[in-house]
Amino acid sequence: MNVLLTGSAGFVGSHLAEHLLHAGHTVVGVDNYLSGQRSNTEALRAHPRFHFVQADVSLGLHEAHLPPGVDALDWVLHFASPASPPHYQQHPIETLMVGAQGTQYALDLAWRQGARFLLASTSEVYGDPHVHPQPEGYWGHVNPNGVRSCYDEAKRYAEALTMAYHRARGVDTRIIRIFNTYGPRMRADDGRVVTNLIHQALRGEPLTVHGDGQQTRSFQYVTDLVDGVLRLMTVTHHDPVNLGNPDEYSILHFAELVRDLIDPRLPIHFTPAAEDDPRQRRPDIRKAEQLLGWVPRVPLADGLARTILHARHPGAPVLAHTS
Amino acid sequence: MNVLLTGSAGFVGSHLAEHLLHAGHTVVGVDNYLSGQRSNTEALRAHPRFHFVQADVSLGLHEAHLPPGVDALDWVLHFASPASPPHYQQHPIETLMVGAQGTQYALDLAWRQGARFLLASTSEVYGDPHVHPQPEGYWGHVNPNGVRSCYDEAKRYAEALTMAYHRARGVDTRIIRIFNTYGPRMRADDGRVVTNLIHQALRGEPLTVHGDGQQTRSFQYVTDLVDGVLRLMTVTHHDPVNLGNPDEYSILHFAELVRDLIDPRLPIHFTPAAEDDPRQRRPDIRKAEQLLGWVPRVPLADGLARTILHARHPGAPVLAHTS
Repeated sequence: MNVLLTGSAGFVGSHLAEHLLHAGHTVVGVDNYLSGQRSNTEALRAHPRFHFVQADVSLGLHEAHLPPGVDALDWVLHFASPASPPHYQQHPIETLMVGAQGTQYALDLAWRQGARFLLASTSEVYGDPHVHPQPEGYWGHVNPNGVRSCYDEAKRYAEALTMAYHRARGVDTRIIRIFNTYGPRMRADDGRVVTNLIHQALRGEPLTVHGDGQQTRSFQYVTDLVDGVLRLMTVTHHDPVNLGNPDEYSILHFAELVRDLIDPRLPIHFTPAAEDDPRQRRPDIRKAEQLLGWVPRVPLADGLARTILHARHPGAPVLAHTS
Repeated sequence: MNVLLTGSAGFVGSHLAEHLLHAGHTVVGVDNYLSGQRSNTEALRAHPRFHFVQADVSLGLHEAHLPPGVDALDWVLHFASPASPPHYQQHPIETLMVGAQGTQYALDLAWRQGARFLLASTSEVYGDPHVHPQPEGYWGHVNPNGVRSCYDEAKRYAEALTMAYHRARGVDTRIIRIFNTYGPRMRADDGRVVTNLIHQALRGEPLTVHGDGQQTRSFQYVTDLVDGVLRLMTVTHHDPVNLGNPDEYSILHFAELVRDLIDPRLPIHFTPAAEDDPRQRRPDIRKAEQLLGWVPRVPLADGLARTILHARHPGAPVLAHTS
């Protein structure tokens, strides 16, 4: 199959591209490197079925972008967007645009091509939820005007637009809501707790835990996410599907695991609770289980070990293509 | 002052244009007539300070659209959008686009011009609220994927984009959230309860009330809304401000008032409760009161009488310019 993937140089996009190539497909990757990494493209460039287009999908996405030999598309997968709070808050207008104009250009391309379309949405559409865990039918609790609204509202808009293209134009759409995900090729500066802990430990610094560390988080390993995406593309279901790992661990547990995997002698420093990270989300994944036969399979310790190995040796290939 | 007003041929836009002209300003009205009415433009065309541009603001809004003699803008007021459920559900993609691309073109124009910008948002950002009445700080309860999401999410996105332009680019922005509004020049086919009742009565038909008619609604007369808009433009406040009338009346009371004003002999027919109109919203207007010294002033009976008079004689001028 011929697959166009926006955000191919991003963390999740790069893994998805790798798996699609591994499965025998042709991949046209598109990225403008606003938050994607050139090294991710370089790692894929050697593959004969990988084609890269440097372009901003918010400004247009057309057949003229397709490389010679790729004259029709089977799938359009729209993963382009800044996704970590430091990145989207640094680029609020670009983040809003890739949710609206970017999604629409990708949908228009899928419509013209008769291609299946997938929107990478996010657990952020649930905002600061009043329901735990969050099923897909929960409408969310999002501040439309806050500093995070550029991301949250862009993704909610992208979902509404995707449903409108499905209903009004019959585009064969899919929507996933991605919960916290980790793995090799996360940007060192993404500002997320797993990344911060790993890079503190690799620098030989104390690991920082905010508050008493008893607040919990859940993280899925990136290959579990990729597996869910590929399964969803093979069934017909247009409403959103959560993809995330419901296993919750305390932040202190993450810190201890990372410390033990890197250097058990490192101290853990407790600092005052962070004001800007109050959100706790946990996916209700019963729909994905029933619809796709999907559950996350990679244990936290294994995923962290692979992530740390890659953070130590960024140039090395990622070990496993699937879980 | 020079004012650019998108949606100038719409119900609210046409009243706003009239008041701005009356106050001595120059008005550049922009509309594509997707849901606006040509008759509203025709009524304004005779005014020497009114200029009309037929254009779709979702496709662009540039200095080239300005008529000769208008070489700088003081205000950009963005009112363009389908706003009644039958219209936006008939045009979901256009509704989403005017919230995203349309708002952005209007913001970009205001930014380049150093003009003050106002976004006409809506009480629909509160969705099916769990809090009554709704203060501006309430985050709302909106289904991002339902058939109304094309409007609700477009307006939430437009608010987020407006705040992003204010924060990231320093545009001098205003946001109003408009609650149910009625008055002369509402489209006969807007599908709203006031319009339906008036046109049933004018046709000599029985007035239809769903359920027992005890469900309540609140409606503001359009000149009250215009008054609030003009007051907000003269103070500095970037967060959203509710503009609506908090006085609630039962639907049966509306029907009886309309009947008594048109033909007291008409019967009222009760039909099964409508499934698709469950939303009840009532504005908390304390912010507008404190910030703007604004309260709605037109009593329901007066507003209905003016509305009915205009529905009987659509060509006649609207009587009062202010309440």
